[in-house]
Amino acid sequence: MRVTIIGLGLIGGSIAKDLRSTKFATEITGVDINREHAAKALELNIVDKAEELEPAVKKADIVILAIPVDKLLTVLPRVLDLIPEYATVTDMGSTKREIVEIVRNHPHRKNYIPAHPMSGTEDSGPESAIDGLFKGKITIICDQQDSGPQHLALIEKMFHLIGMNIAYMTADEQDLNTAFVSHLPHAAAYALANAVQAKEERNIIFDFASGGFRSTVRLAKSSSTMWHPIFQQNRDYVVESLDVYIKHLEEFRDAIKNSDSEKLLLLIKNANKIRDILDGNNHSLIQNKETNIKFYTK
Amino acid sequence: MRVTIIGLGLIGGSIAKDLRSTKFATEITGVDINREHAAKALELNIVDKAEELEPAVKKADIVILAIPVDKLLTVLPRVLDLIPEYATVTDMGSTKREIVEIVRNHPHRKNYIPAHPMSGTEDSGPESAIDGLFKGKITIICDQQDSGPQHLALIEKMFHLIGMNIAYMTADEQDLNTAFVSHLPHAAAYALANAVQAKEERNIIFDFASGGFRSTVRLAKSSSTMWHPIFQQNRDYVVESLDVYIKHLEEFRDAIKNSDSEKLLLLIKNANKIRDILDGNNHSLIQNKETNIKFYTK
Repeated sequence: MRVTIIGLGLIGGSIAKDLRSTKFATEITGVDINREHAAKALELNIVDKAEELEPAVKKADIVILAIPVDKLLTVLPRVLDLIPEYATVTDMGSTKREIVEIVRNHPHRKNYIPAHPMSGTEDSGPESAIDGLFKGKITIICDQQDSGPQHLALIEKMFHLIGMNIAYMTADEQDLNTAFVSHLPHAAAYALANAVQAKEERNIIFDFASGGFRSTVRLAKSSSTMWHPIFQQNRDYVVESLDVYIKHLEEFRDAIKNSDSEKLLLLIKNANKIRDILDGNNHSLIQNKETNIKFYTK
Repeated sequence: MRVTIIGLGLIGGSIAKDLRSTKFATEITGVDINREHAAKALELNIVDKAEELEPAVKKADIVILAIPVDKLLTVLPRVLDLIPEYATVTDMGSTKREIVEIVRNHPHRKNYIPAHPMSGTEDSGPESAIDGLFKGKITIICDQQDSGPQHLALIEKMFHLIGMNIAYMTADEQDLNTAFVSHLPHAAAYALANAVQAKEERNIIFDFASGGFRSTVRLAKSSSTMWHPIFQQNRDYVVESLDVYIKHLEEFRDAIKNSDSEKLLLLIKNANKIRDILDGNNHSLIQNKETNIKFYTK
């Protein structure tokens, strides 16, 4: 199958590697407005060829957009204008409401599957692409009723081939849930990095940074090109999540400030419950191995 | 050398392993009020014998206290009462002001070196003890002028043997710096875990938890037995660090809320600078390989 990937960074490059190794793609054409990224992706043999957007899209069976969410608002409609009738289009964006809204009435809307594979690292660029980045992780598919069943089936097959589980929900549900489990942790890490840099000398941060500090601020290394537009597009839910977080921080601070020992202990013990959740003493997708599919109905 | 370790959890157990493998200890006696921990440490051959505190301390060349900081306030003075004249005592506590204050006028004060090895994991108990936990990490030694030079030299030798760098500062400086680079990240993770659990169903957190979310909340798994008293003993500096953090979170939230795109980009790019610091494009201890020692003079 002829796959065209637009955006050859961490996500685009990593999915290219998996689609090649799983033989899902017979030919991978890469598109990137950043000439260096395109050249690097060719050099690393991540793509078979690098082309301009129009010819690359016109010959594709599948077009995968792995570009920042602000760029999606202009590039996705253009791609839907250019694709052949049979072609399928999907994206990897972390926000969905604005993006599905902008193509709501596009004649090729049924060719498009709004997707969000929840996997990544704090690195960026084609050289940061890795094999198996998506294995065992979840991808969200939004508003599946608005996509053609053949197109939906092909994208589901693609995500299953690279080892992903799939969750189905509306674009609105995805933006709300993603705000709390992904956008909020990134905002928290950015603010923590700024707070510590504001108060500590660089060499003290460097010398004292234990594993704990490193893991908590790791996401603060994440690229502004990707994250700046995510926060803006998911503004309402991200602001809501930050309000909730700040409220819990104030509660924690006040328990310490007021020497409310019992309250502080309760807050820590409640936070500790995250261990059971993350370590998987939990009923969830794991139970649906036969299909790897789960419906969230709210 | 006869080493007695009081507290056989992650830290006490890990240092026991290193002191044995480096041959610094010829005999390791363990003390733990938790009978199961003591038995487990014996079973895992982390210690040679488990004894009561008094006999274990009376025969020791070095006593290492690896117990929660609230317990230190009562156990450290008792240990200093019991040790032979020649013996050296150190602790592994994350806070120092209250602890040095409580033994300020003890006749054996010079036998004691207040230390804080900055290394750990979110796990606890003897079974979580690991080899090389301290290698390449930093340990803080406080108010070294108040310790006897022979005792200080022996503890420095011990930390160097297990691969640690040493930073010297006052107990007050240690509590301030540790508040920002260690206590704050833990408080931030606890509050983030509480915020997300308050808003999301367990299965959604579980399914959607990507590597990013996991690393940001990892510290929220940390034991309340260790952390509850740390926050209380370092109250003023922890509250100050939380105030600074909340201020930066509000600034970040408001940039999003007010669609202040430029400001938001600046905040993200400033946070990104933490990458240079953590990835070590930095002048610091690394430059002092010959001694592994650095003095922070404020």
